[in-house]
Formats: sequence, C-alpha cells, structure tokens
Amino acid sequence: MVKKIKKSIIKKKVANTNKAKWVYNFEDTPRSDKQSLKNLLGGKGANLSEMIRINLPVPPGFTITTEACNEFYSLNQKYPSTLKKQVSAAIKKVEQKIKKLFGNESNPLLVSVRSGARVSMPGMMDTVLNLGLNDKTVIGLAKKTNNETFAYDSYRRFIQMYSNVVLNVNHHNFEDLIENYKLTKGIVLDTEMEASDWKSLIGSFREQIVSETGKDFPQDVNEQLWGAIGAVFQSWKNQRAKTYRKLNNIPEEWGTAVNVQSMVFGNMGDDCATGVAFTRNPSTGDNSFYGEYLINAQGEDVVAGIRTPQNITKKARLEAGSKDASMEESMPKVYKELVTIYKKLEKHYRDMQDIEFTVENKKLWMLQTRSGKRTAKASIKIAVDMVKEKLITKDEAILRIDPKMLDTLLHPTLDPKAKKDIITKGLPASPGAASGKVTFSADDAEKLKAQGQKSILVRQETSPEDIHGMHAAEGILTCRGGMTSHAAVVARGMGRPCVSGAGSIQIDYKNKFFKANSREVKEGDIITIDGSTGEVMVGEVTTIKPDISGDFSTLMAWADKTRTLNIRTNAETPLDTKVARDFGAEGIGLCRTEHMFFDEERILYVRQMILSKNIEDRNKALKNILPFQKKDFVEIFKIMKGLPVTVRLLDPPLHEFLPKSEKEIASVAKILNISEYEINNRINDLHEENPMLGHRGCRLAISYPEIYEMQCEAIFEALVECHKAKVQSVIPEIMIPLVSTAKELEILKYLVDTKAKEVQKKHGMKISYLVGTMIELPRAALNAFEISKYADFFSFGTNDLTQTTLGISRDDSGKFLDDYVNSNIFKIDPFVSIDVDGVGQLVKIACENGKRNNPKIKLGICGEHGGDPDSIDFCHNAGLHYVSCSPYRVPIARLAAAQSKIRSKQKH
Amino acid sequence: MVKKIKKSIIKKKVANTNKAKWVYNFEDTPRSDKQSLKNLLGGKGANLSEMIRINLPVPPGFTITTEACNEFYSLNQKYPSTLKKQVSAAIKKVEQKIKKLFGNESNPLLVSVRSGARVSMPGMMDTVLNLGLNDKTVIGLAKKTNNETFAYDSYRRFIQMYSNVVLNVNHHNFEDLIENYKLTKGIVLDTEMEASDWKSLIGSFREQIVSETGKDFPQDVNEQLWGAIGAVFQSWKNQRAKTYRKLNNIPEEWGTAVNVQSMVFGNMGDDCATGVAFTRNPSTGDNSFYGEYLINAQGEDVVAGIRTPQNITKKARLEAGSKDASMEESMPKVYKELVTIYKKLEKHYRDMQDIEFTVENKKLWMLQTRSGKRTAKASIKIAVDMVKEKLITKDEAILRIDPKMLDTLLHPTLDPKAKKDIITKGLPASPGAASGKVTFSADDAEKLKAQGQKSILVRQETSPEDIHGMHAAEGILTCRGGMTSHAAVVARGMGRPCVSGAGSIQIDYKNKFFKANSREVKEGDIITIDGSTGEVMVGEVTTIKPDISGDFSTLMAWADKTRTLNIRTNAETPLDTKVARDFGAEGIGLCRTEHMFFDEERILYVRQMILSKNIEDRNKALKNILPFQKKDFVEIFKIMKGLPVTVRLLDPPLHEFLPKSEKEIASVAKILNISEYEINNRINDLHEENPMLGHRGCRLAISYPEIYEMQCEAIFEALVECHKAKVQSVIPEIMIPLVSTAKELEILKYLVDTKAKEVQKKHGMKISYLVGTMIELPRAALNAFEISKYADFFSFGTNDLTQTTLGISRDDSGKFLDDYVNSNIFKIDPFVSIDVDGVGQLVKIACENGKRNNPKIKLGICGEHGGDPDSIDFCHNAGLHYVSCSPYRVPIARLAAAQSKIRSKQKH
Repeated sequence: MVKKIKKSIIKKKVANTNKAKWVYNFEDTPRSDKQSLKNLLGGKGANLSEMIRINLPVPPGFTITTEACNEFYSLNQKYPSTLKKQVSAAIKKVEQKIKKLFGNESNPLLVSVRSGARVSMPGMMDTVLNLGLNDKTVIGLAKKTNNETFAYDSYRRFIQMYSNVVLNVNHHNFEDLIENYKLTKGIVLDTEMEASDWKSLIGSFREQIVSETGKDFPQDVNEQLWGAIGAVFQSWKNQRAKTYRKLNNIPEEWGTAVNVQSMVFGNMGDDCATGVAFTRNPSTGDNSFYGEYLINAQGEDVVAGIRTPQNITKKARLEAGSKDASMEESMPKVYKELVTIYKKLEKHYRDMQDIEFTVENKKLWMLQTRSGKRTAKASIKIAVDMVKEKLITKDEAILRIDPKMLDTLLHPTLDPKAKKDIITKGLPASPGAASGKVTFSADDAEKLKAQGQKSILVRQETSPEDIHGMHAAEGILTCRGGMTSHAAVVARGMGRPCVSGAGSIQIDYKNKFFKANSREVKEGDIITIDGSTGEVMVGEVTTIKPDISGDFSTLMAWADKTRTLNIRTNAETPLDTKVARDFGAEGIGLCRTEHMFFDEERILYVRQMILSKNIEDRNKALKNILPFQKKDFVEIFKIMKGLPVTVRLLDPPLHEFLPKSEKEIASVAKILNISEYEINNRINDLHEENPMLGHRGCRLAISYPEIYEMQCEAIFEALVECHKAKVQSVIPEIMIPLVSTAKELEILKYLVDTKAKEVQKKHGMKISYLVGTMIELPRAALNAFEISKYADFFSFGTNDLTQTTLGISRDDSGKFLDDYVNSNIFKIDPFVSIDVDGVGQLVKIACENGKRNNPKIKLGICGEHGGDPDSIDFCHNAGLHYVSCSPYRVPIARLAAAQSKIRSKQKH
Repeated sequence: MVKKIKKSIIKKKVANTNKAKWVYNFEDTPRSDKQSLKNLLGGKGANLSEMIRINLPVPPGFTITTEACNEFYSLNQKYPSTLKKQVSAAIKKVEQKIKKLFGNESNPLLVSVRSGARVSMPGMMDTVLNLGLNDKTVIGLAKKTNNETFAYDSYRRFIQMYSNVVLNVNHHNFEDLIENYKLTKGIVLDTEMEASDWKSLIGSFREQIVSETGKDFPQDVNEQLWGAIGAVFQSWKNQRAKTYRKLNNIPEEWGTAVNVQSMVFGNMGDDCATGVAFTRNPSTGDNSFYGEYLINAQGEDVVAGIRTPQNITKKARLEAGSKDASMEESMPKVYKELVTIYKKLEKHYRDMQDIEFTVENKKLWMLQTRSGKRTAKASIKIAVDMVKEKLITKDEAILRIDPKMLDTLLHPTLDPKAKKDIITKGLPASPGAASGKVTFSADDAEKLKAQGQKSILVRQETSPEDIHGMHAAEGILTCRGGMTSHAAVVARGMGRPCVSGAGSIQIDYKNKFFKANSREVKEGDIITIDGSTGEVMVGEVTTIKPDISGDFSTLMAWADKTRTLNIRTNAETPLDTKVARDFGAEGIGLCRTEHMFFDEERILYVRQMILSKNIEDRNKALKNILPFQKKDFVEIFKIMKGLPVTVRLLDPPLHEFLPKSEKEIASVAKILNISEYEINNRINDLHEENPMLGHRGCRLAISYPEIYEMQCEAIFEALVECHKAKVQSVIPEIMIPLVSTAKELEILKYLVDTKAKEVQKKHGMKISYLVGTMIELPRAALNAFEISKYADFFSFGTNDLTQTTLGISRDDSGKFLDDYVNSNIFKIDPFVSIDVDGVGQLVKIACENGKRNNPKIKLGICGEHGGDPDSIDFCHNAGLHYVSCSPYRVPIARLAAAQSKIRSKQKH
C-alpha cells in the first residue's frame, strides 16, 4: 500500500513539470521501493543514496533524475525551466556537508559528473571528473592539499576529459602534446612530471582548444557544470549507447540520470588508493572477496591497464603468485573496514556486489555498488549458495538466473585463454563451439565422419537434404539465413553449433574454397566456429566440455517444483528424444514426421510416391515407407514411456523431397526406371512461387489422403507393437498441420478415426489417441471456435503464424529485419520472441474461443518461440498448458516457466 | 409478421422429424412466402402449387419435400419412418381428384416422378415417366384409351427409363434391341411400330433386365414408386449434379424435392400435343411469345431433336420461313387458352416465364412454369421493359440482373453460329474472345503488332516483364496459374481476353510449338480464345462486337442513383484510366506505380538503381526515373479531373525488375558497364524463397527511403505542373503498402510530409494530399487502431490479405484449390469472392478499430474482390466507402453496389 502511494507520488511529479522535482541530494531521495527509485535516479544514483542510508562513507552529491533527461529531449534538448534553481540548491547542500565551496579559490569543491541509467551500461556514456578546477581554484587545491603536482595533474586531466566529452576535441591531440613534451624533456613516466611540467602542458592544451573550437577553456565553474550535464544527457543518444541498448533490449524511453558527486582522490600520495572488488568470485561464484587496487591512483588507472593492479586479499595474491603487497597487507585497517562494508552491502542488497572505492589519506570512501556481472556458472552457484545461507529464498534464486545464460552451460565452449584467429562473424545461431575440416557438401561430411574425422559443414544455406550431413558434421556455417533459418533451427534441434548468415563469406563450390574478408579457406582446412558468439576462426581452438554439476540440478529441481507450465520437446530421432529426456522434457510437443522421410533408405520410396501417376502406384510406394515409419514410432514411444507424444503428419510441400541436381535426377531416373524428362516435368509441375504458402500441410492430405492414412497406420501399428512387447506405451496426439477451416479438420479427423478403427479391428485391441491441429494461420486462430469442435488439442505453430500474421518470410527476413530493429519498428526479431501485439493477439483469441467451445482442450506451442523466455512468459500468462522447444532449450524453458509462475504469484 | 410466423412453422417441422410433414399435395401447400416455399418444395413443386392456386389446369400430384431428402441422407439413405404413410395419403388424394386408381387394372393412374431442387438444375437429376404400368394396368390403359399401340409404347418407354434410372441398366441395351427388331421386321420409323411389336420388345427388355440384375422388372406399382423416389433422392449426389452445383455455387445442403404427378399424354393422337415456350424472347428480350411444340408427342420428343418442333405463333413461323403449321393455326382454341395463361403467369410472377404444356385430347395441361433463362442482353431489355410496363419497380429491375453477366456485354463475343474447333479448355480468366497468330514471347507479340498483325501470346505463365507483350497481343493463353494469376489479373485490368491454367497445354519454347491433347499448334498458326468460357480453338472464329446500348445505360443510371458505395478503378496507364472513366469509375483506387517501372525506356534506370552499391549511385539512377514518373502522374491527374487518385508507392520486391535470361543479363551488363558476375551476384543476393512475404512494400522504403522520396517528389511536382497548366487537378491519396506496424507508417508518413514541404517551399504553393495505408496483413488489421493514428485512409488489399490470412499463395493455389472446392472446404475460390469468415473478420476488426480512433477515416478496398458482386455486398455491409476494381469490372461493381443498397433497405 505504502509502495503504491510512493509510486503514484513519483508519477504525479512527472505530470506537472513546473512543480516537478528534478534533483535529489543523495541523502534526501524519496523512500519508494527499489525499482521505482532506480527508474527515477538510475542504478548508480539509487545505490549511492542507498549506501548513505545504511551509513556507509559516500562522498556527498546529488542526482538529476531520468525524468529530467526525458524532459530535456521532449523540450528539444533544452533544460526544464526549474532545473537550474534545483541544481544550485543541491550544490549548496553538498558544500555544507563536505565543507568546501564550488568555485571557491581557497577551498574549492571539485565534483564528478557521471551518467547513470536504470541498468548499468558500462563505458557507453560520458563521465567528467575533477570538475570545478580553473586557473584560480587549482591554486587553492594545491595549497589545501599541499601538493602542487597533484593539483595541476588533476587540472590537466580535467581539461583533457572535459574537452573530449563536452567540447568534442579529440583526445589524441592532448596525448600527442604530452608525448612530445616528454620526448623534449627526456621524461619517461607520468609520475616523473612535476607541477611546472603540467602547467606548461595546460598552456599547450588551451591553445589547442582555442584553435579547434575558437574559444578558450571555460573558467566559470557553473558553465563547466552545465556543459558536463548536457554532455551526459546527450550521450544517452550517442551511437555507442544506441547500439548497446539495441543489443541489450534497453528501451530508449528510460533515459539516463546524472550524478554530481564531490571528488575524493586516491592519487594524493601513498596513503591513498583506489580499487574495484566483487563480493564473490564473478567467474566461479566462490564465496570469497575478490578484487584489485592501486596505491596512489585514480579509479580510471585501475581499468586503464597502464599499471598492473594488485590483489586485495592476501589469499588471492598467494594464489596468483604475486609479490606486490595486497591491500590486506599494505592497508590492514582500511582493508578491515572494507570487509565490514562489503559484507554489509551484500547482506543489504542480498546479492553479490561489484563495488568501487577510493582511499583518500587513509579515509575509505565508497563510490559505487551494484549487482556484479557474473558468468552463468557463477550465477547459479551464488544463487544456490545464498539460498543455503538463507540470504534469499528459492523463488529469488530462480528469478536471479537469466534463463538464456543456461545455454552456455549445456554446450562446449571455447577456452577463454586460447588464441583466436577470427576471420569473420555471423549470427550466433546455435550455441556451442566446434572445430573440424571445412567441407562443402553433406555427403562429404558423412564420408569424413565415416573416416573418424571431424568436419564443419559450410553451405550457402542448408535444406532438408543436408540433414544427414548436419548430423555428421561437428558444426554448421552458412552465409545466408537468420537465427531461424533452416540451418539454425535444425542445428539447435540437434544441439550442433551453428553460425548462420555470415554474409561476408563467399563460397566457390566448384573450386572448393571460401573467402571471408579476403582470407581464403580451402576444403580440408581446419576452422573453429563459436555458435554462441557467431565467430568463425581459422585453425583449431581448444574447447571446454559442459559441466552441469550439482548446483545446476539443484536449481532446476527448484524450478520444476515451482512451474505449472509443462515443457515438451521438438524431436523426431531417438537420439534427440533421449537428449531431451535427459534435459528434463516431459513429452514430445512436435515430432516432425517428414524428417524421417529424408533418410537415405526411404527417400527413394518417397520420391517414387511423388512421381506416381495414379493412386495405385502411390499406394505401392507408401506401403514401402510404412514399415520405416512404424519402426521410428516404436523407438520413440519406447523412449517416452507413457509421456505424451505429439506427432505432426506430413507438412512440407512434396517438391522438397525431389532430387535437385542433374546428377541426382539422373540417378533417381535410373533406379526408378523413369525418364529424366518425366522427373523434370514433375519438378516443374510442383515448383511453387511461395512454398511457404503452397500445397503443403493438410492440403496434401486433402489431395492425397493416402499419405496421412499410411502415417496413421504406422502410428497405430507402432502402438500395437509396443503393447504386444509389453512396453509402457504412450497416448499419441496426432496433429494435423496448416488447418485454416473447421472442414479440413473434420475431414481429416474422420480419416484418422477410420484408420484407428481399422487397426483396432485387425488386432482386436483398443487404441487411445488424441486428434488435434496446429494453429499456425490467422484464419485458424480467428475460427478457433469452429475448429475446436474437431480438436482435442491446439498447438500454436508460432513460426508460421508469425510468417503469415506479419507477412514476413522467415527465410528472407534477414534482408530487412536489421533495418527494422534499427528503426525501432520491432523491438526484437519477431521470430526470436513472440510478437505480442500481432501474433499474441491471435493466440489469445484462439485460446479463448477454443476453450469457450471445449473447456478441456489442451493448449500448447511448438514453434521456435517455445525456447524463448519472454515468449514462455507470454504462454504462461495466456494460459497454455505446455511449451515445446528443441532439446537443448528444455532447461531454459523449465527455468523461464518457473520464473513466470513466480512473477504471476507476485502480481496477485 | 405473418411471413415470419410461417417461416418459423416450417422450421419447427424440421425440428421434430416424427411429427414432420414430408409430403404436400399441390393444392395443400403451406401459405408461406415464395422463397420459403421454394426452399421446402423446390422450384418445380412450388410453381406447380402456385399455378393451381391461380386456377391453371395442372395435373394433380404431390411433392415430397427437400427436408425429406436431407433427412434421407442424414439417416444414411433411409426414408424417414412416417414418409410411406404420408405418400399413400397423398396418392389417395390424387386418385380422388383425377378419378383414376394407382395400380388399378381397369382405370390405372400413371404418374411421373421428377426431381425439383430450389433452383433449376436442368438435366442433372433423374426423372421417371409413365410409372404405374405393369402387365395388367397396361391392358387397362389400352382399353381406357382405346389405343393399344399407345399403351404398349408407353409401357416400353417406362421400362426403358425406369431400368436406366432405377435399376442401372444401360439404355444402349434397349436401343440395340429396338434397332435389331426393326431391322428384322424391316421397319424404319417408330410410328410404324404396332402394339404387337412393342409387346414382343417388352419381352426382350425384361429378359435383358433379368440377365443384368438377376430379377424381373417390378410389377408392384408401389415398389416402382419407391424405387423412383429413391433414385431421385440419390441423383442429388450423382457426379453430374455435384459438378453442376460446384459450377453454379449451389450448396449441397439444399437437397432436392420429388414431384409425383399424374401423367397426361401428348402422344395419344393428333388432338394431342406437347410444347415449351418463353413468354418473351430469351435471346433478344423482345416482348413476343416464343416457343415450339409437337403434335402427338411426349415432352422429351421436343427436346430430343428426332422430330423438328414447330413454331407456336404464326408470326414466328413466317419469320422462320417454315411451312409446318404453327400451333396458333393448327389448334387455335387451345392456343388462345395458352396465350391467356402465359399472360396470367407473367403478370403473376412478374417475370419472363419458361413454360411446359401438354395437350391431351384437346385439353391443355400446364406442366411447369419457371423464370426463364436469358442472355445478358435479354435480361436487361426485359427488366427495363417491365419497368416501363409498370410490372416491376426500378429496384426490382436492378435486382433482376446478375452483375456478372454484364461482363459478356462489354467484350467481343464469339458468334454463336460460328463453327468451333475446340482443342482444349482452361479457366475463363478474362472475358472476351480474340483471334490471332500464336506467339511465344512478349517481344514477338510486339513485333507482330508493329507489322499490323494480331497475335495471341502463349506462355507457361506471365511475369511483369511480359506486360508490353500482353498489351500488344489480342489475348493471352497460359498453361499455369488460376483466375487470379498474374496473367489473369493484368489481362482483366487491360480488358484483354485471357484463358489461364490450360493445364493440358505443353509448350516447347525451343522448337516454337505447343501441344494440347495431342494436337500440335505451331508459332504463327491462328488460334481463337474465349476468355468467357476458357475455350481454346484452332483457326479464326468470328466475333461480335459489344453493344452497350440504350437499355444498358438506362439500367446503369438507375443503379448509380441507388447505390451509396463509390466505385473506383485500378488503373495506371492513361488508356486504362480513360476506359475506366468511360465505364463510370469515380476515381482511381489503386494506381500501381511499379507498372510504370517496366516501361522499356525506364527499366534500365530502375536496374541501375537496384545495382547501385551506395546511396549516391542510387540517387543518380532515381533522378533519371523521376521525370518519367512525373509525366505519368501528370497524364493521369489530367484525365481524372478532380476525382480522387490513390497512388500506391513501390510494392514488389526489387528482384522482379532484374533481367532473367543470360542474354538479357549480358545486354544489361554491357549497357550499364557492370560485369555479368556482379549482376548475377546481385540477383543471387536478392533471390527470395517466398517473395510474397519478402523484402517488398514499405519494407523497401525502410531500407531505401530514397525510392519513396523520388516517387513523392514525382507526385507533388506533377500536382504543381497541373496547377501551373491551370488544369483541374486532383487530391492524391498516397498509399503505403504492406504496413504491419504503426511505426512503419509513422516513419513513412513523415517522409511523405517532409517531401511535400520541400516541394511546397520550392514552388511557394500549397499542396493538398492524403496519406494512408493498405491493410493487407493480418497484423495490420489487428493493430488498426494504432495504425489509424497516422492514416487518412485504409485501403484493404484483399488479395494479399487473403494470401496471408489463409496462408495460400495465389500463384500456387491452382494445385489444390479445386480439391478444396470439391471437398466443400471452400464454397468458392477465396481469391474470387472474399472469405467472409476469415478475411472478412479482419476487415471488420480493422474498420471498427480504425473508425474508433479516427471517425473520418476513408475506407476502401482495392483487391481483385472489388469487382466481385458477393464481395461488393460484403463491403457495402461492412461500411466501406468505396470499392476499386479493374476498368472492365466497373459496370459490374456499379450494379452490384446498387443491389446491395436495395437489399439492405429491404432488410430494414
């Protein structure tokens, strides 16, 4: 209740900009909940205020809100009218606290001006330090610190930084001047520079500024301050920040706050220091304090890498074999204070913290705390440990893990220490890393496999005919196709690493090499691909095997107990089925029967079936396919022991199965004793302008019912065989694809039922099964009420539903989706995360109408979205019963489903 | 009110089948409105009962209802339990009226058993005459009529017909027996046959029946009757009837009634006759009695063509130069009676009637009346005449004309008297008939045109590159593609006759000939195509020019006064624009700017633009296209003088414009000084799996805004030029295609507005225009509320909306749509008539949501459906403001819109 009121107070402030409060001193921030505070003050500002509240030593300062930033943009880059007054008042408070005066010649207050968005965007936006120095205050600073060199060093640093950030003077200019000066004077290290050297350089700097900007460096400290504030606001929309936001799905509307804070100095002598630390190890998750510091340095020096930072703890120093004293040893008192503080912080925030501190003349100042970034592995260990430590609940632990991170734990990864000779980058289409010999055809990949050799299959794009090669290869690299191209989808399903859409690669199939950015790679050369980053490297790069250790399974067990959404998998081979079961799949949500058709032993019969001129010949060919299909189902049913198995009847257009190259055509003609002319004619006949919208799915069965009849016979006979073998069998869910009218389903359900009766009669045994349909066309969604009359279940085929609802071909979308995401038309690729406003509306309409007619109807989703956490959240909220995804995404889905459940509990 | 109650009475009867009344004697039928009566009793039954009601001489009988037929099918081809009793009772009433007894040996009642569906399906279903004859009743009939020959002739006719229809004995068997008998006896004409001859033949017939069916011919008259009733019911689902229904959009659910009627005989002597007549001339519409009769004959003899029928009126006899007496002359008394009756009937039905009558021993019996079929021309003349005669209102006249019929009036038609050597049949894709030399390429068609020769362009299918050839040719013939293929759509737009999807044609482009059902046709051979029937003929067939005379324009003027829906046209050439204006178009609803890109003069610049590697080169190429586009717009704006013109910016994917053949590529490479390799690369780059869902429409403009900028500049500069030339100009409606999100339209509206400001500033003059979007993707329809924020108008692109909503590619649908219509999944091709349950729902959602945000939003439709009467009716009811269709469909749309208006008035 209190929280709500606070929220509404903050909101109301926005409404009336004249009365709006744009500026908060750290100690006066509103007492609202953490998230609202972060939204208003940014992460950094909120955390600084929070640290003050728990009595940690933080240099005083204030935050200009994110709302001020948004107002700044809505006023066409002008400040809200009341801002100046509020900033002056805030400065005054800082002056009182720290007992220094801004712009005062004898006791000058210096401040830092930093950006601070709702979430951390490291290095993306601008920062100015030491602001408040000018020709007069620098003298005051020198006197006050009794350190003229420090004062002029600070002044020149300020001029450099400010000129770069605010005045857009290239920092190389200043660096050149310093280098020249040192050369002339024979100076090697910055530390050898004296006050007079810096003074002289400051003169040169200012000449440079005049020559570039036509104006002298501003001496008015208020002018300096407003220049810096404006620069931070503007940096919210610089190119780096935009790109970062795009990559991290951060909305532009959030805006950044500006933090103005009094400076403390770690570079005023040997009783000064500066450092960064993590409260636990961010790469392993171990519960040990971990960090680096530098004596007599400013924060940027730790990061810059000019001096090598030292360990904070003695233990770490010993482990690293370093001789430089740790902070624990060199500043034991301050170190103790730091340990007390970090423990307090971790307890307060109930999460691993990434902290920054400065020691100024033995006094410890905290400059920042925030949740520390960590690896997937550390993430899980920390969460599980903190539950054990009773710091957080299991629900919180579950919510702490980004489900997408799990992917990296399930696949081999590149050894981070290994050298990489990157030649190009494509899309990270299927995670994991792999090395092997370059091969350009599926058959060659298979041959290499037979010889015990590893290969990477490199193709323009892949087609269903390449599947055996994709299986044989260690990884797949394509030049075309997006994250949801054939190659990407199939590779993810198989758990093979894949880099797709590496557009800079040009393949010369004939001469068997490819070029990437003028580097030539020949057949047989070894390359390595990283499907988690999209990188393509020449040579072999060492990889590390996945380790799904105890903490992982602990966390997943908690997730399983929590979630209500079932997780199934998309799988059709016994191998995939087993992998998915091991990853915790609770059934098969999509078994694509056509994948079984491409097997070398069967494809000939399939082709014979397609080339048949009449139903008799077609039936003969189908009879030959039947035993294969039956065997497939028996195997899968046995593995799934009683779990649901959704079998989708034949879906792709028939032309996908026909041979393509002249050579293949000739070979098929010979074997089947048909003329090549006839085969070519049939290929021509079956050619389609838009195969995605063509003669496929249930449309095939309306034209050639005998195909589905054979498939149903195979399913039912497999059930009988399982029954006879006394194996726990399954209740198959027979799924009719591409339905757009109730009538289609009525006709085909009748076909299925008829075949079931036949098999039941033949064997004198009862068969249980369900019949349902995919909802993958807008018309089907709109007519769900009628369609549900013939359906035991709906499975949303959101891939095709996205294609038709948005009118975007998945295979072709690569050409413009980037432009669309860049122009902010789509927040994210709609094939990656479900388009809630379009496809989502249709899913909801279909669920509501389907349930209205048939309250018991089973609802699930079997598109690629089934493995995407945001889409899973949508599915949970839309009331679906299960999602189905590729085997390697099952753990992700399990975790995401648990998170959705927890979030919806929290809302109520 | 009374009508409604009657209707509900009829409905309630269905609900309770046990109490249901399945049988009505002609004189006892329910007093409901005409349509309900027809639905219940079929057209024939309803009309027989109607004639009795107005005291015309009709042989007594009864009707078994269509509901009984449906019940028969829902009971798996068994009769409802109460049917037998009701039929017996009905027979009894007939016996009382006519004073004969069914099955009685001395005074036998004979009956006919005829089908009778809601609408006439001539010759499609089965009929049995003379039923009730057996070895005993035939003797009675002979005695009673004192004409043994007649009696046995009737008996053998009955056996023949019954055996064929009910017992499935092939009628050839009987004809062979008759022929053999005559040969043996030396008899030439049937009239020479005597009773003994027929008796002898009846014996042979019955032996034949026993040998084929294993049973003797049934002697029990009730068995005969039920056999015939069952056969009629079953004939509702015979193949002929199914095909006829499909072609005429008659739902299977309607069922057929069965009419059992006492026989009257026109073949009992020279005071007997039988005839058929139309109350007005059905081919010209002239108001003169028109028909044929035969003395001493049964009805089937008039139709069978063995004897030549004679004229009914003396006037007609004189005109025909016939010497055989007309009925007016040979039977003046009966003729007078007939005249009185036909006038009474026409007045009663207020429409031209097609009547059948029999004269039995000088007594005139009416056997049938129904609205007469007529030509389009007659249809209009009769409607306009009847208004003048005050027989019907203008509204009724408008409703009487099937708008689709108008098509035949606007195009040349084949002379019905000409001989036709038909070699194959395709789809009637664009109406009209044309002859010309066979040519296989667009260029050749153009060359022939330049030489003043007529050609028919024969292609597998056409593409935008063929447009100049389609223009040059007299007509187009394709082997692939449906009614809405490229060829069909473009041909209809141009008014060129087109036969598409003539699947039996195989073209050998290389050797320049095609084969159709083993007939070979070479380049240069003359063929004729009839785009109204789909027929393809060898040689030239005379055609008749269209005549849109006074009656036509009178009717159209009435329609224009009535309708509220505006009719625009889809046109982009000055020629089409003029044609459409002449046909009454009130604006352009779709001007496809890409069609202008294919012109020979410009395509090179377009290709240059596409092949550009950077925006500078692209802009250079665009600059060259600009003046052409501007000129096009100036011409169109001048013709449209103030009427609205909707200009759609570039829509198709860029690859459509690139050269295709190696030869073309080489030529383009040479002219543009680019390597062929580069062009091929670009072609590869731009290749799309599903171009329909690819990088097209507004997506092009998101990637390459400069294209739309050029087009907008052309539009605005054209306006300026019109203004300067003091021509009444137009307010263009600039239409953005393929929008799926509000953001796209927001961005592109800004682009249009910016360009408008630029041109306004340049010329210092104000420009008026609208900006809107096509709604042609489901997502757009679902998000219409948001999208309407940036739109002055919505235009429903129902072609693409159908493709995406149903997931059916128009170009590929030919392969399965037939199966779909045959299986009753679609009542009609959804590209021909709007799919109300799918696409229709989305149109309604979009209209409602668009209007909710912007009540003034203009709503129209510009898909092919704009020319389809049922779709126009949907648009009228959905509250659209206009429909836009190809020029030749404008009159159809005007009439259909008027009909919709009248129907909706009638409902309120």
